[in-house]
Amino acid sequence: MADYTLCYWPLPFRGQFIRTVLAHLEVSWEETGSDVIATQRALAPQDQLVPHMGPPILIDHAAGVSLSQTPAILTYLGSKHGMLPGDPLGDALTAKVMADANDVLCDMTLNNGAQMWTRASWDNFQPRLERWMEIFETTGRRHGMTAQVGFLLGTDAPGIADFAAYTLWNTMTSSFPTLRSMLDAKAPAIAGLCDRLAVSPDQERLRAWSDAEYGDTWCGGMIEASLRAAL
Amino acid sequence: MADYTLCYWPLPFRGQFIRTVLAHLEVSWEETGSDVIATQRALAPQDQLVPHMGPPILIDHAAGVSLSQTPAILTYLGSKHGMLPGDPLGDALTAKVMADANDVLCDMTLNNGAQMWTRASWDNFQPRLERWMEIFETTGRRHGMTAQVGFLLGTDAPGIADFAAYTLWNTMTSSFPTLRSMLDAKAPAIAGLCDRLAVSPDQERLRAWSDAEYGDTWCGGMIEASLRAAL
Repeated sequence: MADYTLCYWPLPFRGQFIRTVLAHLEVSWEETGSDVIATQRALAPQDQLVPHMGPPILIDHAAGVSLSQTPAILTYLGSKHGMLPGDPLGDALTAKVMADANDVLCDMTLNNGAQMWTRASWDNFQPRLERWMEIFETTGRRHGMTAQVGFLLGTDAPGIADFAAYTLWNTMTSSFPTLRSMLDAKAPAIAGLCDRLAVSPDQERLRAWSDAEYGDTWCGGMIEASLRAAL
Repeated sequence: MADYTLCYWPLPFRGQFIRTVLAHLEVSWEETGSDVIATQRALAPQDQLVPHMGPPILIDHAAGVSLSQTPAILTYLGSKHGMLPGDPLGDALTAKVMADANDVLCDMTLNNGAQMWTRASWDNFQPRLERWMEIFETTGRRHGMTAQVGFLLGTDAPGIADFAAYTLWNTMTSSFPTLRSMLDAKAPAIAGLCDRLAVSPDQERLRAWSDAEYGDTWCGGMIEASLRAAL
């Protein structure tokens, strides 16, 4: 039996934040299909594995723990496996990076597809996306990170904050290559971090697997179609 | 000089999550007006106190720390002042409760006012709001909380998770009293938690101050007007 089970749609998007960390930790995990997600969501909260509104859910089989909400799952993995700074400010900045990443996902999908992109609304949004990139860049720069060396919060090894930044920007710019030049221009240290983390064998394996499973799909659905049309 | 400065709009909404914890900690803080928020937002990220897209921002003067993002600020205060469980699961569940609370705020404001409520869309949303209440209720019940006793994650004293749940539901149902009967019906243990935390002298003082400053305003703006019209 695998160490963990991840319940998420067959997509990168939020699930990939958990997959990149699981791959880095070199633990085993199974992916459940959409049917398990649908079954869980149809239950009353008191009957769910963990009371939740939507995926991802991560099950830690040995610990008998089920968790929902991406930042909560990453906090759990980071705390259990030594991937959090472990001081009030460092742990808080990790939470900030996760919250910023979630805000970018909401922005990029117009709140999970509540509306659809048009060419005009995308053009209008671009300065805000550039600003998000600069926000991540500034966080790294203030902790001594450059395009060549270092990590987002000044730690000696990559932690949850680094994998959250890497997953956000590397996955997005891999699915939408035209955005990579924006990242290079606005956030060269983040682009460098992405490149450094991407070449590890565990991330290369995950990337090969994800590419085979998901192709260039990112968030999926009509919102991704409208995003591709606007780009 | 005050211990902390909170930069937030003159509104409850996200800011109140920080105010309730600061009040509980019996530390002093100053509130900045909208002008400081506007000045910060106009700066390039590299020139901001902390690189951020929007408020709240909390400044810890003695520590020389500035943080944005509500869950990050609450993680910092909780970690610094012993209001987190301190184990991987407890800290992760705290992050889950904060993420759930943020999702409820986004749901209730149609993503910070991206769209406006109509009577029809509000009626359509009500089962989801009830489900959110049940999700919080189930979390408490699974940790032994009842309408009379206990805390959300089974701790001996109220922590960040409790204050997040309290701030979310008590502030909302105080501003929109018609929602209190829904909370009583769907989440009696949460309603009880709200009542128990609300009667402490520090929370009563905060409530009196907030009522004088903000009246029954909750999230403010056109979205609050559309919510009141739909309700």
